[in-house]
Amino acid sequence: MSEPLKVFLDEKEMPRQWYNLQADLPHPLPPPLGPDGKPVTPDMLARVFPMSIIEQEMSQQRWVDIPEPILEKLALWRPSPLCRARNLERALQTPARIYYKNEGVSPAGSHKPNTAIAQAYYNKMEGIERLTTETGAGQWGSALAFACRQFGLQCRVYMVRISFDQKPFRKFMMETWGAECVPSPSTNTEVGRKILAETPDSPGSLGIAISEAIEDCVQSENTRYSLGSVLNHVCMHQTIIGLEAKKQLEKIGVEPDILIGCAGGGSNFAGLTFPFLCDKIHGKDMRILAAEPAACPRMSRAPYVYDSGDVAMMTPLLPMYSLGHTFIPPPIHAGGLRYHGMAPLVSLAAREGLIEAHALPQLECYEAAVLWARTEGHIPAPETSHAIALAIREARRAQDEGKERVILLNWSGHGLMDLSGYHAYFSGKLTNYVMSDEEMAKSLKCIENLPKPPPLR
Amino acid sequence: MSEPLKVFLDEKEMPRQWYNLQADLPHPLPPPLGPDGKPVTPDMLARVFPMSIIEQEMSQQRWVDIPEPILEKLALWRPSPLCRARNLERALQTPARIYYKNEGVSPAGSHKPNTAIAQAYYNKMEGIERLTTETGAGQWGSALAFACRQFGLQCRVYMVRISFDQKPFRKFMMETWGAECVPSPSTNTEVGRKILAETPDSPGSLGIAISEAIEDCVQSENTRYSLGSVLNHVCMHQTIIGLEAKKQLEKIGVEPDILIGCAGGGSNFAGLTFPFLCDKIHGKDMRILAAEPAACPRMSRAPYVYDSGDVAMMTPLLPMYSLGHTFIPPPIHAGGLRYHGMAPLVSLAAREGLIEAHALPQLECYEAAVLWARTEGHIPAPETSHAIALAIREARRAQDEGKERVILLNWSGHGLMDLSGYHAYFSGKLTNYVMSDEEMAKSLKCIENLPKPPPLR
Repeated sequence: MSEPLKVFLDEKEMPRQWYNLQADLPHPLPPPLGPDGKPVTPDMLARVFPMSIIEQEMSQQRWVDIPEPILEKLALWRPSPLCRARNLERALQTPARIYYKNEGVSPAGSHKPNTAIAQAYYNKMEGIERLTTETGAGQWGSALAFACRQFGLQCRVYMVRISFDQKPFRKFMMETWGAECVPSPSTNTEVGRKILAETPDSPGSLGIAISEAIEDCVQSENTRYSLGSVLNHVCMHQTIIGLEAKKQLEKIGVEPDILIGCAGGGSNFAGLTFPFLCDKIHGKDMRILAAEPAACPRMSRAPYVYDSGDVAMMTPLLPMYSLGHTFIPPPIHAGGLRYHGMAPLVSLAAREGLIEAHALPQLECYEAAVLWARTEGHIPAPETSHAIALAIREARRAQDEGKERVILLNWSGHGLMDLSGYHAYFSGKLTNYVMSDEEMAKSLKCIENLPKPPPLR
Repeated sequence: MSEPLKVFLDEKEMPRQWYNLQADLPHPLPPPLGPDGKPVTPDMLARVFPMSIIEQEMSQQRWVDIPEPILEKLALWRPSPLCRARNLERALQTPARIYYKNEGVSPAGSHKPNTAIAQAYYNKMEGIERLTTETGAGQWGSALAFACRQFGLQCRVYMVRISFDQKPFRKFMMETWGAECVPSPSTNTEVGRKILAETPDSPGSLGIAISEAIEDCVQSENTRYSLGSVLNHVCMHQTIIGLEAKKQLEKIGVEPDILIGCAGGGSNFAGLTFPFLCDKIHGKDMRILAAEPAACPRMSRAPYVYDSGDVAMMTPLLPMYSLGHTFIPPPIHAGGLRYHGMAPLVSLAAREGLIEAHALPQLECYEAAVLWARTEGHIPAPETSHAIALAIREARRAQDEGKERVILLNWSGHGLMDLSGYHAYFSGKLTNYVMSDEEMAKSLKCIENLPKPPPLR
């Protein structure tokens, strides 16, 4: 055997601090705004988040210590392997070297537990007994279910009704970890009861589920709410991915030319790329690429605005690329990428020109995923397939240009819970959704009267 | 953090030879017998297996080199991590230390690809273009589908009709790797057509599927048949598990007192334990425990006999513990353990008193699996839960006796494709099947007139 396909780290080599991009971005992040248009203060968030999480959300500190109990739980599956996709390289006949960070090795099968464990820990430390959250396709709900069990917290997950019915296995996972998974809209909340009274067979939506999870949180004592992406603290918790990857690449003396992650809410993308982005800001030459679905093009096509994180506008206004909070993304199988907005930190980095965003159509992504499965073996999640498809584009470009580039992608999760998407692809039932200019204009109407972020100085 | 939870090996530390227990067993393995009652010769097997596999099946050589191309493919996921289940130990308050070898990290999610890759390679080397096989719940079929794609072989899997209908996701996995998955009985074969003519809605059985896979193989040119357990070469290919585990334990200076694996056809059990069994035969003190389902107790209750590997008696007679080839195991969720016989090498080791077998009821296994998922995170396959339940019994015994024992178990696969079993457990729909003496006597009738293995000298 030639160069090894995998680079492992020992547990003692695990990063002991998270990296906070806020310390290094050229311009400060515009603050989240309340319904009155004024910056949100920490105490306004205290009913839904524990204070230590709110502090992390607002912190400008470059390095934040990872508490020992979090490291111990992360060690159930971390450090994750850094692998080389040599079979794929051969199939593409590319001179590029393709490395990937395999986040599919976690109990829930994706990168999501990296922040779920941290959030469960901080809530537990502040005496919270129960967390609520929402989930679309189920990745985040199952990650939080797993994490809550690790720290003895109760957990209730509001799962979008249509996914709840179509994907019962995610519910069974949460149940196995002792969490309660409720189809949303439900009769647990006022907003749920209202919707059910009007539309008894409502398929639900992520917006409704967020509203229910927050209402449930606010109404119950010793309960807090937990979010799986978008926010600054979530992006920070995920930087352990990129920090590990840096150490692993150093071990084999490799420096990446191109970093790639798929971008839904932005957390797995941030997790891999932010530690490298720090080097780029300080002068290092590399390209950092976000893979978005063509059905849901935020950084690649939408404006940088203030918008709400949810349909019902229960969250503060966040400065981000957004298709408008009323936008309902088409039913692509990559459920984790079906979001109207984008993490403010990722958005600002894109606005600063530090990140390139690319929009990829669904069929190209499935083609890439199948090629991956048939060469590298592991079946990727439909979200991850977007990063793979973009990496293949870049590997082909390296071939055309005769350049031996090093590509590193975040393999954010496996697709074993999403096999029906593959079957639909092979059956010829999938189509490409590409957002038209008309749809874009229409979907942006809802943000017309919202405050605008300040221009870059 | 204290002692690390995981021990990794570098790829260059991967074992480069398999271990063959035939070289060390105190008594030789009685030969397989043909329909005439005479030992089977290599050429009689040549129509269904490639010659290099037949040689391995009969070899007495202690160490067999692993060809470089096999090592390269195994390196897509191997070496697998050796982990310590410290959360489980704490929950049990046991002085025992529990280690597990995580075979769930393979693309198919179990230990099965270890032999699938080897078998696909040897077939490819002999110019074979296509493999056929059968699968029950789908673990083996998906492993072979993955392996065939790695070496550019076509693959057709006959999947028991009732599982095919109930578990469509396994079929989608095989499809993703480019294999054809056919519900059995099918119209592809004479035996299938005959059964369908008599029973159009036949649910199928493993026996029927084996018959179809062999008939398909024999009728098609350049096609061979592949078996996922039971046979000597399969057990040998799996010894890479135990050989890696030995190296990993050496790294942390730990010696196991108790080894545990679940036993269906016997291959994952053999894979972990045979390299240690070698030491035991040569005087080392340790206990080696096989976990069988109480619904299907071979080594723990059935006689050591000559019996056929399949219901239709298409395979040679093998010397093994068997419930009789006509026995249809009850519908426990651990589909991989629903087999009437047991690998001849494992059977002989048990007969020699080198192995203890224990029969575990289904509910105890699910209870153990849920405790595992809620402490260690990863959700185990229902087969694996038998090994876990037995490890928990031993950990409790260590506590009762105040002994600090070291337990090593083979975590043969994850349960992400088997979540409906967990749901059935939580819904109170599962029961314990324990075979009665009456059923045992009845099921053994079919072997009354078959030849008997020689007594141990």
